[in-house]
Amino acid sequence: MPRSLTWNHDTIELIDQTKLPQEIDTLSIRTVEDLVAAIKRLSVRGAPALGVAGAYGVAMAARLHDPKTNESAFEGAVTTLRQARPTAVNLALMVDRVAPIARQDPAAALAEAHVIAEEELAASVAMGDLGAALSLELAGDRPLRIMTICNTGSLATVERGTALAVIQTLHERDRLAEALPMETRPLLQGGRLTTWELQQMGAPHRLIVDSAAPFLLARGAADVVLIGADRVAANGDTANKIGSFALALGSRHADVPFIVVAPESTIDMSTATGDDIEIEDRGPDEVTSIRGVPVAPTGTPALNPAFDVTPVSLITALVTETRVVRYHQGQSL
Amino acid sequence: MPRSLTWNHDTIELIDQTKLPQEIDTLSIRTVEDLVAAIKRLSVRGAPALGVAGAYGVAMAARLHDPKTNESAFEGAVTTLRQARPTAVNLALMVDRVAPIARQDPAAALAEAHVIAEEELAASVAMGDLGAALSLELAGDRPLRIMTICNTGSLATVERGTALAVIQTLHERDRLAEALPMETRPLLQGGRLTTWELQQMGAPHRLIVDSAAPFLLARGAADVVLIGADRVAANGDTANKIGSFALALGSRHADVPFIVVAPESTIDMSTATGDDIEIEDRGPDEVTSIRGVPVAPTGTPALNPAFDVTPVSLITALVTETRVVRYHQGQSL
Repeated sequence: MPRSLTWNHDTIELIDQTKLPQEIDTLSIRTVEDLVAAIKRLSVRGAPALGVAGAYGVAMAARLHDPKTNESAFEGAVTTLRQARPTAVNLALMVDRVAPIARQDPAAALAEAHVIAEEELAASVAMGDLGAALSLELAGDRPLRIMTICNTGSLATVERGTALAVIQTLHERDRLAEALPMETRPLLQGGRLTTWELQQMGAPHRLIVDSAAPFLLARGAADVVLIGADRVAANGDTANKIGSFALALGSRHADVPFIVVAPESTIDMSTATGDDIEIEDRGPDEVTSIRGVPVAPTGTPALNPAFDVTPVSLITALVTETRVVRYHQGQSL
Repeated sequence: MPRSLTWNHDTIELIDQTKLPQEIDTLSIRTVEDLVAAIKRLSVRGAPALGVAGAYGVAMAARLHDPKTNESAFEGAVTTLRQARPTAVNLALMVDRVAPIARQDPAAALAEAHVIAEEELAASVAMGDLGAALSLELAGDRPLRIMTICNTGSLATVERGTALAVIQTLHERDRLAEALPMETRPLLQGGRLTTWELQQMGAPHRLIVDSAAPFLLARGAADVVLIGADRVAANGDTANKIGSFALALGSRHADVPFIVVAPESTIDMSTATGDDIEIEDRGPDEVTSIRGVPVAPTGTPALNPAFDVTPVSLITALVTETRVVRYHQGQSL
C-alpha cells in the first residue's frame, strides 16, 4: 500500500485524500502555506499523519526561512502550521518537537522529522499486535466481525494505521471474518478511503451508513468496535470523528467491546476531560453538498460539528503502541 | 404547500420525491404497474402517503380490470400493490380496506379512497395539536428546539404530516425556536425534503448529519425529539427509518423526550413486538453512490437496512390522531 506522505528532495509528496477513490493524485508541496491549505481541506488527515506532516512542515519552514537569520518568517510559518487543525493534538505536538531543534540547527530538523515518521510506522505495528490480542481476548479466539468509523489506516498515518492496523493484523492472522466500515459523513472518509484500503489488503468488508451502526450492533452484526482518536484527555474521554459517540452508545447498548486505538502522542494529559476539548464547526457546505452535488435546497443552514467526545465511561479500553489501558477494569491513564 | 398525491381523472398525480429539491416534477400515473414502480423507487413514500397511494391504486385497478369480469387481473394487481413495500403496514391496510369494496362495487372504490385521503388530512391536524401540547407539557411552554429524522411532512402524507405536523403547529403558535432535521442517509429525505418543507413554512432550521444527532443531544442542542413511524407493534416497539434507533439511544442518554407521531393506522396489533418486523435490505447502490455520484470504490459491498426498530423502552410516548400513549408512565396500546 502506498505511503500517504513522504519527503522527497525538499518537497512533501502526499496522496490527495479528497480525490480518492476516484483518483490517486499525489500533491507535491513546496511551501508551508500550501501544506497548511492541504491540512485545512483534509487532503492530509488523521492524527498521526498530521503529526508527521507537521514535523516535515517545520523542516520545510527551516529550509525556506533560516530561523537564525529570518526568525519572524520562520516563527510565523510555525505558528500557522501549528494552528491549521485545532482539534488534532499530534500536529501541535510534533511541530513543538521539531521547532526547537530547527531553531538550534536548521539542518537537524529534517532528520528529526524522519525519525518521527519511522516511530509512527513502528507504533502502527505495535498497536496492531496489542489491539488484535485484546480483541481476540475480549471476543473470543475466532474470526471476528469488526465495526469501525472514519479512516484510520495507511492514509491516516504513514503505513498500517491505528484501528485499521488492528483489522489488518487480524486479517493477516486469519482472524478477520468481516470489517464493517461506517461511511462517515460528512466527508465520507470511511466510504471513500477505508473501503479502498480494505480492498487493497484483500480483507472482506461491507460498507454501512453511519446511522445503521447502533442498530446493526443491537442485532448482533459485530463482535468488536475499533476507533481511532484525535485527542485523548487525561481522564480517557476521547475526541474523534463525529459519529464516534453514537457508535459508543450503540456498543454499550449491545454490550460489544468499544476499543480506542491511538498512539501515545494522542494522549494529552494537559486536557483534563472531554469538556475541555474545542469542537470545530466546519460550516454548512460539507453537509448541504456531497462531492459537489447539492443534497439540500440552496442556502440551507447547517450545524456541522467535525468531532465529538466519547466519555471514558462508554470506552472499554485504550490501545497504544506501548500499553493497553483497561478502563472497564478501572485502569486509568 | 402542494399536496403530495391527488386523483385527477383516472390518473394519480404525485410529486416525484426522488427529484426534490432540485426539481418539482409531477408524475402522472395511469397503471398499477407504474404505481408499484413509483413506490419501490421511493417517488412516493411515508406511511400515510403510501396508504393513500394504495387506496387510489385499488380504485385504479378496479377501473382498469373489472373485479367481476376480470377477477384474475384485478387480484393480481392488488397483490402486487399490497407487497410493494413490506415494512409499510399502511399500504397493505388501505389496500385491504378498499379491495373488498371494489369487489362488491368497482365504482365505490374511488369514493372510499377519497374518504381515506380526507381522513389522513384530519389526522395530521389532530396529531399536530396533540403532539404540540405534549411537547410543551414535557419540555416547558416556551419556544422549543426540535430534532427529527427523515421526512414526515406533507410529502409523506397528504398535507401537514405526522412529526412535521407537530413542528408546523408549534411554529404557527410561536413555540418553535428551531428545527434540527437529520439528513437521513442513504436517501437523504431529511436533507432534501424536510428542509424544503421547513423552508416553505418559514420555520427556522439547521440541517445536521445523522451521526451528529446523539452528540448534539448530549450537548443540550434540542428539547424534544419527534419521529414518525412505519409500523408500531402491539407492545409499542416502533419501526422507522434507519437511524431512529441511534437517535433514541441519544435521547435516552441526554434525557430528552423521544416522541413517536403516527396515525392509528400505523399501529399493527397483529405484530406482537419489534422482533416480528421484517427489515428490508435495499442493496448496496444507495450506500455506494449519492444522487449518481460514486462515494465508494466500484463494486464495494454494502449492508443497507432501510429501517430499524426502536424498543418501546426507549420511547417516551406515542401521539396518534386520537390519543397520547405515555409509555414512560406505564401506559400501553
